[in-house]
Amino acid sequence: MEVDASSNIAAVLYGPETLKIESWPVEEPHEGEIQAKIQSVGVCGTDFHYWKSGTLFGTPLPKPMVLGHETSAIVVKVGSAVTKFKPGDKVHLIPAPSCHKCATCYEGKAHNCQAIKLGLHGHGHLRRICNHPEEFTVKIPDNLSLDEGALMEPWAVGVYSVERSGITVGQNCAIIGSGAVGILVFLAAKLAGAANVCIVDIDEAKLKSAQKMGECVTVLAGSDPKETAQRIEEKLGGKPDVAFDASCSQIGITTAIYTAKPCGKVVLAGLAPDCTLPMRHAAINEIDIINVVRFGSCYPRAIEILKTGKVDLKSMIAMRKPLEKTDEAFQEMIKGLKSGFKIIIDCTM
Amino acid sequence: MEVDASSNIAAVLYGPETLKIESWPVEEPHEGEIQAKIQSVGVCGTDFHYWKSGTLFGTPLPKPMVLGHETSAIVVKVGSAVTKFKPGDKVHLIPAPSCHKCATCYEGKAHNCQAIKLGLHGHGHLRRICNHPEEFTVKIPDNLSLDEGALMEPWAVGVYSVERSGITVGQNCAIIGSGAVGILVFLAAKLAGAANVCIVDIDEAKLKSAQKMGECVTVLAGSDPKETAQRIEEKLGGKPDVAFDASCSQIGITTAIYTAKPCGKVVLAGLAPDCTLPMRHAAINEIDIINVVRFGSCYPRAIEILKTGKVDLKSMIAMRKPLEKTDEAFQEMIKGLKSGFKIIIDCTM
Amino acid sequence: MEVDASSNIAAVLYGPETLKIESWPVEEPHEGEIQAKIQSVGVCGTDFHYWKSGTLFGTPLPKPMVLGHETSAIVVKVGSAVTKFKPGDKVHLIPAPSCHKCATCYEGKAHNCQAIKLGLHGHGHLRRICNHPEEFTVKIPDNLSLDEGALMEPWAVGVYSVERSGITVGQNCAIIGSGAVGILVFLAAKLAGAANVCIVDIDEAKLKSAQKMGECVTVLAGSDPKETAQRIEEKLGGKPDVAFDASCSQIGITTAIYTAKPCGKVVLAGLAPDCTLPMRHAAINEIDIINVVRFGSCYPRAIEILKTGKVDLKSMIAMRKPLEKTDEAFQEMIKGLKSGFKIIIDCTM
Amino acid sequence: MEVDASSNIAAVLYGPETLKIESWPVEEPHEGEIQAKIQSVGVCGTDFHYWKSGTLFGTPLPKPMVLGHETSAIVVKVGSAVTKFKPGDKVHLIPAPSCHKCATCYEGKAHNCQAIKLGLHGHGHLRRICNHPEEFTVKIPDNLSLDEGALMEPWAVGVYSVERSGITVGQNCAIIGSGAVGILVFLAAKLAGAANVCIVDIDEAKLKSAQKMGECVTVLAGSDPKETAQRIEEKLGGKPDVAFDASCSQIGITTAIYTAKPCGKVVLAGLAPDCTLPMRHAAINEIDIINVVRFGSCYPRAIEILKTGKVDLKSMIAMRKPLEKTDEAFQEMIKGLKSGFKIIIDCTM
Repeated sequence: MEVDASSNIAAVLYGPETLKIESWPVEEPHEGEIQAKIQSVGVCGTDFHYWKSGTLFGTPLPKPMVLGHETSAIVVKVGSAVTKFKPGDKVHLIPAPSCHKCATCYEGKAHNCQAIKLGLHGHGHLRRICNHPEEFTVKIPDNLSLDEGALMEPWAVGVYSVERSGITVGQNCAIIGSGAVGILVFLAAKLAGAANVCIVDIDEAKLKSAQKMGECVTVLAGSDPKETAQRIEEKLGGKPDVAFDASCSQIGITTAIYTAKPCGKVVLAGLAPDCTLPMRHAAINEIDIINVVRFGSCYPRAIEILKTGKVDLKSMIAMRKPLEKTDEAFQEMIKGLKSGFKIIIDCTM
Repeated sequence: MEVDASSNIAAVLYGPETLKIESWPVEEPHEGEIQAKIQSVGVCGTDFHYWKSGTLFGTPLPKPMVLGHETSAIVVKVGSAVTKFKPGDKVHLIPAPSCHKCATCYEGKAHNCQAIKLGLHGHGHLRRICNHPEEFTVKIPDNLSLDEGALMEPWAVGVYSVERSGITVGQNCAIIGSGAVGILVFLAAKLAGAANVCIVDIDEAKLKSAQKMGECVTVLAGSDPKETAQRIEEKLGGKPDVAFDASCSQIGITTAIYTAKPCGKVVLAGLAPDCTLPMRHAAINEIDIINVVRFGSCYPRAIEILKTGKVDLKSMIAMRKPLEKTDEAFQEMIKGLKSGFKIIIDCTM
Repeated sequence: MEVDASSNIAAVLYGPETLKIESWPVEEPHEGEIQAKIQSVGVCGTDFHYWKSGTLFGTPLPKPMVLGHETSAIVVKVGSAVTKFKPGDKVHLIPAPSCHKCATCYEGKAHNCQAIKLGLHGHGHLRRICNHPEEFTVKIPDNLSLDEGALMEPWAVGVYSVERSGITVGQNCAIIGSGAVGILVFLAAKLAGAANVCIVDIDEAKLKSAQKMGECVTVLAGSDPKETAQRIEEKLGGKPDVAFDASCSQIGITTAIYTAKPCGKVVLAGLAPDCTLPMRHAAINEIDIINVVRFGSCYPRAIEILKTGKVDLKSMIAMRKPLEKTDEAFQEMIKGLKSGFKIIIDCTM
Repeated sequence: MEVDASSNIAAVLYGPETLKIESWPVEEPHEGEIQAKIQSVGVCGTDFHYWKSGTLFGTPLPKPMVLGHETSAIVVKVGSAVTKFKPGDKVHLIPAPSCHKCATCYEGKAHNCQAIKLGLHGHGHLRRICNHPEEFTVKIPDNLSLDEGALMEPWAVGVYSVERSGITVGQNCAIIGSGAVGILVFLAAKLAGAANVCIVDIDEAKLKSAQKMGECVTVLAGSDPKETAQRIEEKLGGKPDVAFDASCSQIGITTAIYTAKPCGKVVLAGLAPDCTLPMRHAAINEIDIINVVRFGSCYPRAIEILKTGKVDLKSMIAMRKPLEKTDEAFQEMIKGLKSGFKIIIDCTM
């Protein structure tokens, strides 16, 4: 595969809704790095937030930033110390490399490494060519396409959300919000043995899309969280052991708190906003509120289950856009996806 | 349904291989009891042990004992305080009612209640008619046959074994011994998200039967546990997170210890014998040895997942025998089952 | 001991700040009950809430209600089935008897039994004489006074709060709020091996009282939770593993969230109010919010450690009031306790 | 501090009871290493095993090996990339540096890193001068002597053993074997809130030494593990939640299994031998057998609690020997220590 470094371009965020496609330098890979031709990059809700607000969750962008962190690529060159990869390998790039040295890493919580605080871990992968540390590169299983390989990162987040929930065989759960994160949590919860899953959304079209992804019951959320929780309970035949919020909204989390059974768990699969919550209800019913940062230590397990072919990541994909039209992806997200849950940026086009 | 209490009979163990079918008294149910016409009773390895040895794992039988504790039944009469059941209900009888009062019960470990020590909890269900506490009676889900309803108890044991193993989505496991317990653990482990399961046995026919129950790899165990463990590792592409022993044998447990990955778990799903074990290997690799008593608090979850229709208990059944020929079931177990894993005693015949 | 049932009186709440001392009937104990002469009853923040608001956390009182649930007593009579107690025994009455039958009880969470929802579990113990189930009665260790024996319930809550926090040897914690609950959590956290504890309050006098209870650092909380959290971090030499809120206030919980380390825990030891919280900060740092209902299954362990004499409950006591002057206790709580943390009602006076 | 690299010597094991004091090369420290003057080195049971058997637990020594891994030192020189240390710093050298790269490390189990398998992690610290990675070097708290600083490693092992046991406030435990490991587990268990600890040994003198280290009850073990377990139960007023084996013997582990309560834990704090165990008893009572490799991730917590001055490591020390007389230390261990539990090698002499 030939790579013309001089023709590299990247999708660079400058401010609110201000994304520029511009030329971007390519350096030689360091000894521990691979150099890869980026193939597919999934657009994450976090990317959308950055693009829409021009901030890193409230903090102004310190400088223009390349977006993208759900990435498949093909190795084109390897640094002198690289042993696991060779040109031609289809790989996934794990974002947010951890430092191995902080107290958080030492305790096996590398996903929350304090050296890689949110949105401050450097540039993303929406480019034609990119260098990446070998240590944070993994092979894409043979049974996955390059588009699916890009989605290994959000899939690992779904697996981790379910791992943190502690769901075991025969438990029930509700998932508030049927966007991409909600659906990935859904797929992972079914694999973890959830007997019944109730998907909840304010958009009936999204509930219909959700039903295509697997067996579930659904509830169209109204404006009263208590009433929505009541209908979830009826659909499931009782309060579920776990209520996931994948809406990242005050009303979604409130609904989750009213939905979980006594001594149950609310798992926030996505970045909660500062908000008012019915903490008294949580307190009286001993409902714990569990947060989820990235993918924990789930990558190896997330990959192992992908290899079995049991996970349908393909149906997640709503559409594809070429790198030069990344902006259109965000416009589509504003309009709302009619089918599917995830837009792929094709960086080879 | 008419019941002629005077015609009640039971399968009563008197000593080694000495089972008598004899008339057995029927009392009126107490206020908190149901009276049930027994339908199907699965034969457990524990029953076989009692029958073969005439002891309760070494302790002489204190008196003749009715066998059987995997039981479906139809309610024929209810005590004055019973509220949840009425005549005609298809029910499963949970064996080993706990006392609610000992320290073990208080900590939520009712399955290990010290008032119901193994084999000392009174007579079993291999009868035509039997009284049973309402509190330890559950309805059989509509989608299950009475034969399958009998197997809810061993299924709950399988679910509990997997719960104790802590298996999560994408982990791998090995199961040493592909008898009924091993297969139920297999089914539960798949539901819990195990990516790859390796079933291990010394009998090739049993491995073939196992493969009919779901996707798995198999290893025919040899006489050297280390070598068997090595072949398991090769089949799974690495040492598994959990190695279950369902063989209840010294060589099986030894194989499990050599099989589990460092910091992994060996789960003894069944009563281990006193034996010599490679504890040094377990120590150096920080492999924990986890025991399993009965079904933990898993009944509700075991039932919930049965309702979904995802569990194939039907294919577990090898053959059926009438109550009066219970002895033949044990003879078949000596010969070895050619297909299926479980003999059902039909107590209506 | 003679008991004149006809002279029984009770402290009965009728509405906001409306407590009447009135005669109260005494029945014969049922077969499973003891009859006890109440000795000492600790006044809990919950009692104060009931008294002040005349509601059960927002729900109107369904009928006049006897207060009090931190109780020591002396057995005067026993029901026919009682085996563990005899007249003269010094006992503690465990409040909120669980049903043993609901799904929550079945899972070993009897403390959160859905049949004993907050404040709806019948009348309290602020009486001269009271019947109580044997099963929920425990002996007071010989080394405890009757006043200390009354405090076994809040002590068990403190132990449970620390158990839920998962604190292990050498971890650090902060405790926001140095009222009775905060101090009991403090004592339990030190026993659990906390290396350094930082006590936080808005009242300097209470911090001084806290310092008399054991080695700790203190922070006088200001109006900015982030700034308070910063000072806690400085005092402890780093963010603590656990931040307990024992203030039951929005600002207290907010401070706790800013205080806990990444992947740490916030434990709400007391009933949180509905409120606005910095959930984004909790999300980004994967800080879990853990609730605490009553005493979990901690009574046996709470008692065992009391027997060792390592816990100083005596110094908790601020003052004593006779039953007939219960109202004065609430007046003192409005004024604020100058020393000590707990008012005892002497029901023998 | 002056260091004459040419005069360096080391205690090198050649075979069974064959230790030579010989000159040993000193290289310049790499960029990430410190160079340290070794001060005190504790003699571990593992060192004794190596020395006595001339093997690494059965595997022949691949080549002559320097012993010693409980080490305090003073920094004399630092590599160019070292930032945390400077000459003169009093430090402890963490043995067995992990690789950060294997699957075990990735899951936060660096203590069981598969790249540092037992006894194969290179040479020990019984030398005058030694280089060591900065990353695995920690400062000795100011309140500790250099002898105590050497014992930070076995102390961290004790803390980890207790962490794995899950002991919480008010639980009881038994410790079988009152050598150095048993006593360190004892100290850590008391700090973790154990209400009552029963120390068990076959040597009355060691039990007396144990009693000087803290409040405990003791049992002189006989030849019948069941009978010993019975006496432990009597001393503690019930079966303990956890039974630690620190004897590394078949009879010790057997006693621990008979001693733990139903659903309790046996924790093997030290390398168990291959042996015959009463697994039937463990199975029937659902007693788990937990292994302990090194110090887990406990170093930071072990250090934090040492800083509080609550841990008396000083009284652990039985005697000191100069480096050149290391052999005498092993001879003393054969004879048995009359008082104290640990021999220190003074590498400055």
